[in-house]
Amino acid sequence: MTASPFDHPFLSGLIGDDEIAPYFSAEADLRAMLSFEAALAKAEAAHGLIPGDAAKKIADTCAAFSPDLTSLRSATARDGVVVPDLVRQLRSAVGAEAAKSLHLGATSQDVIDTSLMIRLKAVVFLLAGRLSAIAAGLDTLDRQFGQNRLMGHTRMQAAIPITVSDRLDAWRAPLITYRDRLTEQSFPVQFGGAAGTLDKLGAQGPAIRASLAGELGLSDRPQWQSGRLPIADIAGLFASISGSLGKIGQDIALLAQAGDEIEISGGGTSSAMAHKQNPVAAEALISLARFNATLLSGIHQSLVHEQERSGAAWTLEWLLLPQMAIATAASLRLAGELIGNIRRLGAV
Amino acid sequence: MTASPFDHPFLSGLIGDDEIAPYFSAEADLRAMLSFEAALAKAEAAHGLIPGDAAKKIADTCAAFSPDLTSLRSATARDGVVVPDLVRQLRSAVGAEAAKSLHLGATSQDVIDTSLMIRLKAVVFLLAGRLSAIAAGLDTLDRQFGQNRLMGHTRMQAAIPITVSDRLDAWRAPLITYRDRLTEQSFPVQFGGAAGTLDKLGAQGPAIRASLAGELGLSDRPQWQSGRLPIADIAGLFASISGSLGKIGQDIALLAQAGDEIEISGGGTSSAMAHKQNPVAAEALISLARFNATLLSGIHQSLVHEQERSGAAWTLEWLLLPQMAIATAASLRLAGELIGNIRRLGAV
Amino acid sequence: MTASPFDHPFLSGLIGDDEIAPYFSAEADLRAMLSFEAALAKAEAAHGLIPGDAAKKIADTCAAFSPDLTSLRSATARDGVVVPDLVRQLRSAVGAEAAKSLHLGATSQDVIDTSLMIRLKAVVFLLAGRLSAIAAGLDTLDRQFGQNRLMGHTRMQAAIPITVSDRLDAWRAPLITYRDRLTEQSFPVQFGGAAGTLDKLGAQGPAIRASLAGELGLSDRPQWQSGRLPIADIAGLFASISGSLGKIGQDIALLAQAGDEIEISGGGTSSAMAHKQNPVAAEALISLARFNATLLSGIHQSLVHEQERSGAAWTLEWLLLPQMAIATAASLRLAGELIGNIRRLGAV
Amino acid sequence: MTASPFDHPFLSGLIGDDEIAPYFSAEADLRAMLSFEAALAKAEAAHGLIPGDAAKKIADTCAAFSPDLTSLRSATARDGVVVPDLVRQLRSAVGAEAAKSLHLGATSQDVIDTSLMIRLKAVVFLLAGRLSAIAAGLDTLDRQFGQNRLMGHTRMQAAIPITVSDRLDAWRAPLITYRDRLTEQSFPVQFGGAAGTLDKLGAQGPAIRASLAGELGLSDRPQWQSGRLPIADIAGLFASISGSLGKIGQDIALLAQAGDEIEISGGGTSSAMAHKQNPVAAEALISLARFNATLLSGIHQSLVHEQERSGAAWTLEWLLLPQMAIATAASLRLAGELIGNIRRLGAV
Repeated sequence: MTASPFDHPFLSGLIGDDEIAPYFSAEADLRAMLSFEAALAKAEAAHGLIPGDAAKKIADTCAAFSPDLTSLRSATARDGVVVPDLVRQLRSAVGAEAAKSLHLGATSQDVIDTSLMIRLKAVVFLLAGRLSAIAAGLDTLDRQFGQNRLMGHTRMQAAIPITVSDRLDAWRAPLITYRDRLTEQSFPVQFGGAAGTLDKLGAQGPAIRASLAGELGLSDRPQWQSGRLPIADIAGLFASISGSLGKIGQDIALLAQAGDEIEISGGGTSSAMAHKQNPVAAEALISLARFNATLLSGIHQSLVHEQERSGAAWTLEWLLLPQMAIATAASLRLAGELIGNIRRLGAV
Repeated sequence: MTASPFDHPFLSGLIGDDEIAPYFSAEADLRAMLSFEAALAKAEAAHGLIPGDAAKKIADTCAAFSPDLTSLRSATARDGVVVPDLVRQLRSAVGAEAAKSLHLGATSQDVIDTSLMIRLKAVVFLLAGRLSAIAAGLDTLDRQFGQNRLMGHTRMQAAIPITVSDRLDAWRAPLITYRDRLTEQSFPVQFGGAAGTLDKLGAQGPAIRASLAGELGLSDRPQWQSGRLPIADIAGLFASISGSLGKIGQDIALLAQAGDEIEISGGGTSSAMAHKQNPVAAEALISLARFNATLLSGIHQSLVHEQERSGAAWTLEWLLLPQMAIATAASLRLAGELIGNIRRLGAV
Repeated sequence: MTASPFDHPFLSGLIGDDEIAPYFSAEADLRAMLSFEAALAKAEAAHGLIPGDAAKKIADTCAAFSPDLTSLRSATARDGVVVPDLVRQLRSAVGAEAAKSLHLGATSQDVIDTSLMIRLKAVVFLLAGRLSAIAAGLDTLDRQFGQNRLMGHTRMQAAIPITVSDRLDAWRAPLITYRDRLTEQSFPVQFGGAAGTLDKLGAQGPAIRASLAGELGLSDRPQWQSGRLPIADIAGLFASISGSLGKIGQDIALLAQAGDEIEISGGGTSSAMAHKQNPVAAEALISLARFNATLLSGIHQSLVHEQERSGAAWTLEWLLLPQMAIATAASLRLAGELIGNIRRLGAV
Repeated sequence: MTASPFDHPFLSGLIGDDEIAPYFSAEADLRAMLSFEAALAKAEAAHGLIPGDAAKKIADTCAAFSPDLTSLRSATARDGVVVPDLVRQLRSAVGAEAAKSLHLGATSQDVIDTSLMIRLKAVVFLLAGRLSAIAAGLDTLDRQFGQNRLMGHTRMQAAIPITVSDRLDAWRAPLITYRDRLTEQSFPVQFGGAAGTLDKLGAQGPAIRASLAGELGLSDRPQWQSGRLPIADIAGLFASISGSLGKIGQDIALLAQAGDEIEISGGGTSSAMAHKQNPVAAEALISLARFNATLLSGIHQSLVHEQERSGAAWTLEWLLLPQMAIATAASLRLAGELIGNIRRLGAV
């Protein structure tokens, strides 16, 4: 079952990402969901809403729990979300007494959105590191070749000579901005209950939410069940990153086509032409940029999120955001490799 | 590794498709690629280009061949396509003599695009059947409830009463068109060689291509390596189908919200509210419609396919089209189920 | 007020189209709307639904009518459509007696959608002619330079030599398909009344609709108020055309950058570099291709057209389709000019 | 010539914006371009690069200059940009002596991008004011009806009762974020010369750029000719704003359909049904949200901006960004009106 090249046995070698993709596996999602339930119980016990024993029982169970995936699958088909069946399985595992304290005051969206934020936070940390490495790679090229001459091109025509440094500056500038944005990105907990009002928690609601956020290392803010700006923001950042890397890819493919201002190692071979050295990574950067640019539109369509929770708009996010994250990760991986493979840039 | 819900252990229960997804697995792709190589050898032998023995050896080997996936993956990462390594593995398997006759005059794109068309043809046959079944389901509803009264709505306001038949006609009309289009859809072989000119086949090129198409049950036409209309056409049809089913989903969700003009069984449950019966399938139809509408844009971006073959534009197709096919299939599956679950429509 | 370059005093020189844009002016729209009202009256009189005198009075008035645009503007702001106020103005102009026979059984969507189809039919006729002219221009190039050598490029790398004919074939093939599709394109009348059921016309509804279609030179089919496939079809064709022309533009821009295989006259000048000859038209073809690819997504979003008429989905079409038509027209204009400016292609 | 409803004589009444659209007129663009040339001359004189007299002559001429639009149009068709001809006209107007000091070291992109930023800065100031007014309108509704009961809906089904305050909070929260972002938005000068290196200004380049930015009230930063993040950022913000307003529109349209929890004045009339009060503004908000979500994709495609300046990617921005700005403005206008027309929300 390999609808997406990111999940594909051999295409993922080209445009997948072995380090980031696991964060979007069912296993990682369930693990993060279980950590939500454990943290919620702990927070609710700390505020006296549920017994401490129950919270401990829930946390211990969540730490070791292995859900029945077959049941989760058929339940998701029926319910549209995995959470009701996951909670049912967990209730059975924690025993009747603690079961009453499990998932108290929470709704499916709290679990799923918070799981996403937990994983995005980890992913973004890694992506920021890759951006730093790419920037360092560009610095290295600059030290090696920065004073070399490069023909500047505007409107696909030779314009005036520039230096390699000039081109590298244009490549590097947005990457530095992205690294800072990734570092400053906020990952909010989602906790609102059935209709966003924390109706079962009374006056303690916000305090419990703050404790929950603290437990999970997320930032605390009121529920965003139907206000999906956190999703649009991260998607926009992803698309911007892969877009700027796509520009680098396009530039390198054009340099490689002209042929005299760049030397790259590690190009691809052809089944029909043994002599070719294809700039495969450069082209893949363009593909991934256009892919994310395409998908970003759907994320913004899902801002029209009706009432207290739209199954339609929310499910649309699931179809788009994980792939945007992996496309961004693959872009960063490929850009790092490609820049590392540049043996010469410009002419003396 | 489950970037896409279509590949996901539990989300695929909701928006995947167990019947159609396998056509986009690596296994099915490789099987179709191998059938291309076998058919090509057979066609080239029939025209005297390669020895009959070699063609037989190639066909026999392809029928039973199990490629080394690990090698394919790392080679795809390097080459941007799987074919050079697959052909290398196959050459080793058929022996030195037949190896000279394998893949003769073909290029990676011939293998990959033709494999896609072989599989799309099978998929589209199944989708046409589903469209017929849905149309039949609507006919059944029409016989049962067609004369019932339904409040017509324009601009989200009650307008004048219509009959259930009127609404069903609006749902059914495009589906009949789609069924006919799917049935008439042409699936062309792709065969052009290194740069689309069948340079290694001389005057026999077109005749061999026609034989190859015949072997594979595809239609014969000159290469479309850089003219990607066949891809845009099928993608447009997919998006149109899921779009019209999305309209049905939206209508049913609105009927279910108002509550008095429809009865549906099989709705979803909620982790927070035991009393709810969510119209999950109706909402998923909207999500899938918007998903395909989003992705179609990227397919059309890839029409800007430079020179004789664009790695960038071509790879972009891979990121989009299989998911559009599965989204369409899932839409048809869900629409069929949802229509089958309607217990009452309109009021007497 | 020039939100769109197509409407812009000087940008329209580059990417507008003086021949096609007028079909999307308010004047042309109103003229076509008035022809709808006249034809409807004539058809209804022919079937005995309204007096012949009234029909004549309506037709005569429509032929000469100049609506009050200020009133139309403020009414559109209030009603979301121009038709109620246009009909009010017309009723006042035809006099109290004929007023009762005006717009009988029709709704706003009938008038607006039919006006669009009337104009699209005329536009598409002109675009088909342009496609023929471009194909002829490519034939001319083929006769002049077809046997010249061109370096074939795959994956942005020199591959093997091809002939200029080979490249021209790849450019021409989709254009021939588009010309045929434009010629065969059906332009249906829209006539359904308040909720699509022609409720005020009784058994005569379909016959009057057929007469109306005949009067207007459109094809007859049941209403498609909420089934917007005719819009998606023409939008898909527009985007395909500009997409294939974008490929030609990209190819020419790359040829011009390499510099030795093409000579073009009529390139653009630069405010900073007097020596440059920019391939402006080639680049604009790429811009217009990507523009239409982008907008097509929104057209498909509007297939999720709820109930009997969605103001939201319908208005979205207005924001997209006219610009897609003009972008396509401008693409054809620019492609024709650009091909006409090619002085040499390939090398002897 | 009214390709876009934003430019349309009567459709602009519904989805245009009389206050913001003028900023995207040719007149406003030219005025801002002239102010760039004047400010550049002033900055270059301040740094001793050109004579003070020349700068004064240029500034005086620019203040009163009325370009020949017919010439600009045909020149834009040839050059792809308006600037070479505008500069030519200006040179002729300032006289031979000052002409040598005009546009010194600048390129077309400097003039056009900076003109855009000058106007976007003014537009964004006005939009921030509208956001504040809408937030105040929501506050007023909250004071009037906040304690009223509203049925919370999730997945298009009645869930649990909430208060009107709860719903208003969900509407207001993102608007406050947007207002802050608009206020903090940076509008950078663009100044790079032929290929981004300020090659004609030597060591003084950055200082002159800083003075130029100061003159124009823009922020100073190195050229972003091929790094289009400032464009993607503002486009993303526009699409986010209209997306969140689209959610409000969708919610109000659904409330109006159900009918008992809202009273709105000022709805639209129908040409077929006199009894209707259509929630026209609510639907238009959805259309504009989906429009901007669609166009945002194209802006991100244009991040793949090859080499030192891509005519293709840059022209694509022109086709998209002004309309996104006006769509956002119209959304804010309509949302303000719609919220002001709410007579009752929820039930006591």
